[in-house]
Amino acid sequence: MRIPFETLHGTLTAVLRQEGMSADRADLCARLFAEASRDGVASHGLNRVPRFVRMIRRGIVDVEARPTCVSAAGALERWDGRRGPGNLNAREAMDRAMTLARAHGIGAVALANTNHWMRGGSYGWQAADAGLIGICWTNTLANVPPWGATDPRVGNNPLVVAIPRKAGPIVIDMALSQFSVGALGGYAARGEPLPVAGGYDTDGRLTTDPQAILDSRRLLPIGFWKGSGLAFALDVIAATVSAGLPTHQIVTDPELETDLSQVFIAIDPAAVADAGQPDAIADAAVAHLIAGGGTRYPGAGALATRARSLRDGVEVDDVIWRELQASVSG
Amino acid sequence: MRIPFETLHGTLTAVLRQEGMSADRADLCARLFAEASRDGVASHGLNRVPRFVRMIRRGIVDVEARPTCVSAAGALERWDGRRGPGNLNAREAMDRAMTLARAHGIGAVALANTNHWMRGGSYGWQAADAGLIGICWTNTLANVPPWGATDPRVGNNPLVVAIPRKAGPIVIDMALSQFSVGALGGYAARGEPLPVAGGYDTDGRLTTDPQAILDSRRLLPIGFWKGSGLAFALDVIAATVSAGLPTHQIVTDPELETDLSQVFIAIDPAAVADAGQPDAIADAAVAHLIAGGGTRYPGAGALATRARSLRDGVEVDDVIWRELQASVSG
Repeated sequence: MRIPFETLHGTLTAVLRQEGMSADRADLCARLFAEASRDGVASHGLNRVPRFVRMIRRGIVDVEARPTCVSAAGALERWDGRRGPGNLNAREAMDRAMTLARAHGIGAVALANTNHWMRGGSYGWQAADAGLIGICWTNTLANVPPWGATDPRVGNNPLVVAIPRKAGPIVIDMALSQFSVGALGGYAARGEPLPVAGGYDTDGRLTTDPQAILDSRRLLPIGFWKGSGLAFALDVIAATVSAGLPTHQIVTDPELETDLSQVFIAIDPAAVADAGQPDAIADAAVAHLIAGGGTRYPGAGALATRARSLRDGVEVDDVIWRELQASVSG
Repeated sequence: MRIPFETLHGTLTAVLRQEGMSADRADLCARLFAEASRDGVASHGLNRVPRFVRMIRRGIVDVEARPTCVSAAGALERWDGRRGPGNLNAREAMDRAMTLARAHGIGAVALANTNHWMRGGSYGWQAADAGLIGICWTNTLANVPPWGATDPRVGNNPLVVAIPRKAGPIVIDMALSQFSVGALGGYAARGEPLPVAGGYDTDGRLTTDPQAILDSRRLLPIGFWKGSGLAFALDVIAATVSAGLPTHQIVTDPELETDLSQVFIAIDPAAVADAGQPDAIADAAVAHLIAGGGTRYPGAGALATRARSLRDGVEVDDVIWRELQASVSG
């Protein structure tokens, strides 16, 4: 079913208020969840809220914990997320990286001890909507076997790259596994096979069965040996600069996954460019890309889904939606 | 055959001197080529020198052009490579990014109008050997069809990520195609099929025939739709921040490929860390990774090849080596 964005946002705000989150924070946290569903990423929007609530109740997510700056060196800062809500922490970390970029041309925040940031693309859109390039990534629990090994020792560490453009930002939001855990869950829920092999079953055979991969926790990295190497390197950067946990020290139960390490980089292209130049170059690149036919520029799909959601309502899972509504209307 | 590193370096220096490069620059430029062969990347070491010489003679590479800073904003600078030698330009750009990182915690240089940087990993090792994280990428001529299209409109834009570690840096140096052009050339020269599909033939069929892919210029991106999106985004960042050319404006003949756009980012983890902490975290991550068996950490292979090369001599292609030797011994 489809519901108005404001109804979704309002209900999620009420859910979070009920869990003890203060008004301003609940409003923003709920908006980030609602915007994920609005843009077509329900796996990290509404559908993720029940687990988020469970993690609050278990004390894994501390609703009122605010991230703090531990150490600063000009354009680079190290922050402690103190197990606060992952999306609020990430939002604040990118906001701080953007402030640093406006002052220094480029800025970065490394964030330790945080929780799942939900939809990573949120922080790319955040930077791009403000006219800045945003690059950020997170580590995750281990769910990818390094190339040549069979057991998961690397995360699928989503990477976000966003570029401002007046006609529509270019936004990449991708796990470094061929399919994100959320995408596998979506295929499994719909009973569909994957279009290409997405990982190994528990017997070590490549498979297009999403549930077999969720069960084995052996996701195939993008580019085989390349993706697992890149994921490992991004994990080590996030952990070393934030002084946080690397993937191999993160608890492997998704219901308990916490103490993640993340990096947020913002770049202000206007700081070194002639007026209008970055936009003109990006426009030309997008025009050439889509002229090939059969393809869209990265970010176009989210914008199209957003427009439809704001016109016709946000598509929600009936069962999850009714349960959440009931939980706050009693 | 194998030859001593210093013999290789000396001969390449003489080759470059003969092409009009000044002594100091020829020494460094030759060293970068020789080190690529020494570390096992002959495709962008010795084997690439004949084409480099042809490009000098055609006026595409200006041996004496030095990159200049066009615009600066604190920790971010925009440089013009002025069609100088790509490896010297890249070396200087990373060096400048490292200086900025030492001053600001993080620093970046965007470089326009440069030439092929040869072995991208060189600039990762450069940063890591100096105790800094290095992240850099280059655009290339179009050789990857965007997902859903059939003609090449995206580059395979190599990405380098390097992390300092006393026991051996972690270094990723990867094209965003499943196989780099150099790797395809290597398989083709050895008459070997690729271990997995690496692109399309001219009829649009996925193939493991390296020559068919070199002919079609339809390389398969890592992760199918993911790699072409990431490559596009990295291209647009490089072009917009450097005010240089994006891939679609780069001439598609590899003998004439020039005016590339690149980004060099350096991060000083020690600036925000407790003493020894980054190394301890990286060590633990590497130890866990390789304990899985069957795998090495990224960078380990280059170090092993380097050790063998310095002990037994650098492996070189007999024909190319003898031709270059003859060209400077007459």
